[in-house]
Amino acid sequence: MHLISDSSGETLLHILSSLKKAYRDMSCIEHLHTMVHTTTQLDLAMLQIEQNPGIVLHTLGDARLRKRLEAACRDIGLPCVGVLDEAFGALAAYLNQPPAARITPGASLDDAYFTRMQALDFAMLHDDGQNPGSLHKADVILIGVSRTSKTPTSIYLANRGLKTANIPYITGHPLPPEVFALHRPMIVGLIASPLLVAEHRRKRLDMDKTHMADVYTSKRHISAEINELKELCARRGWPLIDVTRRSIEETAAIIINLINEREDSRRR
Amino acid sequence: MHLISDSSGETLLHILSSLKKAYRDMSCIEHLHTMVHTTTQLDLAMLQIEQNPGIVLHTLGDARLRKRLEAACRDIGLPCVGVLDEAFGALAAYLNQPPAARITPGASLDDAYFTRMQALDFAMLHDDGQNPGSLHKADVILIGVSRTSKTPTSIYLANRGLKTANIPYITGHPLPPEVFALHRPMIVGLIASPLLVAEHRRKRLDMDKTHMADVYTSKRHISAEINELKELCARRGWPLIDVTRRSIEETAAIIINLINEREDSRRR
Repeated sequence: MHLISDSSGETLLHILSSLKKAYRDMSCIEHLHTMVHTTTQLDLAMLQIEQNPGIVLHTLGDARLRKRLEAACRDIGLPCVGVLDEAFGALAAYLNQPPAARITPGASLDDAYFTRMQALDFAMLHDDGQNPGSLHKADVILIGVSRTSKTPTSIYLANRGLKTANIPYITGHPLPPEVFALHRPMIVGLIASPLLVAEHRRKRLDMDKTHMADVYTSKRHISAEINELKELCARRGWPLIDVTRRSIEETAAIIINLINEREDSRRR
Repeated sequence: MHLISDSSGETLLHILSSLKKAYRDMSCIEHLHTMVHTTTQLDLAMLQIEQNPGIVLHTLGDARLRKRLEAACRDIGLPCVGVLDEAFGALAAYLNQPPAARITPGASLDDAYFTRMQALDFAMLHDDGQNPGSLHKADVILIGVSRTSKTPTSIYLANRGLKTANIPYITGHPLPPEVFALHRPMIVGLIASPLLVAEHRRKRLDMDKTHMADVYTSKRHISAEINELKELCARRGWPLIDVTRRSIEETAAIIINLINEREDSRRR
């Protein structure tokens, strides 16, 4: 499978991940050709495609490059899909206006960009319970037992512009008292099945080659910890998400929906 | 514009961002409907679409939901595009096999997942010059003058499974000596136009409402700092990327290409 992009290939990687979920048994070798802007770069990619034939997915905006790629694929009998074409076609028809030439986008200094940068800085400074004194500035605070994807979920939400902090929930270690006085941030508890948490924790210990108490990976201890957090969330009215069967993106989508719902109900 | 996804809507957000780059003047209100799995959820989204008509882009996998959505859009005369359809169609034809029902994907505990988690932990621990003692474990080390997107680029690369550290380059503050003894990590310098850096730094100061020396935002000082880093990179043979007109994703794509090229040439 060949993915050809004039940019970073993000969209194609997401589409590939959808394809792989539907074709779990497919063993495919991915060739990612990014930053393809010139015919020379495209011809180089075509050489590799001829050597390793397979489906070609692309997001090329430049009409000349597209035609060249499509013709070359037709010549050697390979399927070639411009994955953005239909969306662009629909929008052009709807607006009755052709798209501007899609050239390399520059980093734009717009507000969304700064919001994202600020949110990422915030997430870095508030990872793993750091700097509790500025938790009131957060949009979201994740409270989770160890190995429930707090850090990657925080980063994902920060990438979406939300200032996110995460705080570990550990039996015997009280949460920072600041947490209980907060009104603005959306506070969410994260749990997972004890089995999954235990597996994550064992993997982590293997990787770090450190020796921590058995209690960290004991399923009984983990269950007790999760139950404590469940009770705390119920008592405080904080939503709780079980991340066992969810990807980071799905957990984040649920949290964003929760925030939107709260904002909607406040506006009413 | 309505984006309907049975998952987190990632793919649709990326496609929307491409559309916006080509239609810069378009002012569109985005309605993101995520985690749409049931006809009830879909009907709720359709209600909102009827109230705010616009183009509908979706990534629904479930055939029943797709048909229901397409029929409803046809009834009220709105364009409706299944953005994954062409790619799925091409793959099904190529493999001569229909896709498995695309149901909600669960978090899979595969190696790629653990690699990503580990890389994110690494990036958090090695942000902004922290923990120089374990830099030898990095895949990538970014050395950049302040406000050249070191942190978000590190996080992006970590999300792609690369253990990434970032170290600020500041005139008068020597780099940690460990850096000069490293062979394995790909070390990359990040610079930007002094104008852009100065603007970023001023924005940062505004935001933090702190008072730092004027030198931090002085274009002359920034130029000197950038030139120092340029010379250092030239001397050590470290590649240098000017991020002035690049998005995080593009900078990351260049770095990933550099790593792949080095690996290719080592294999030869």
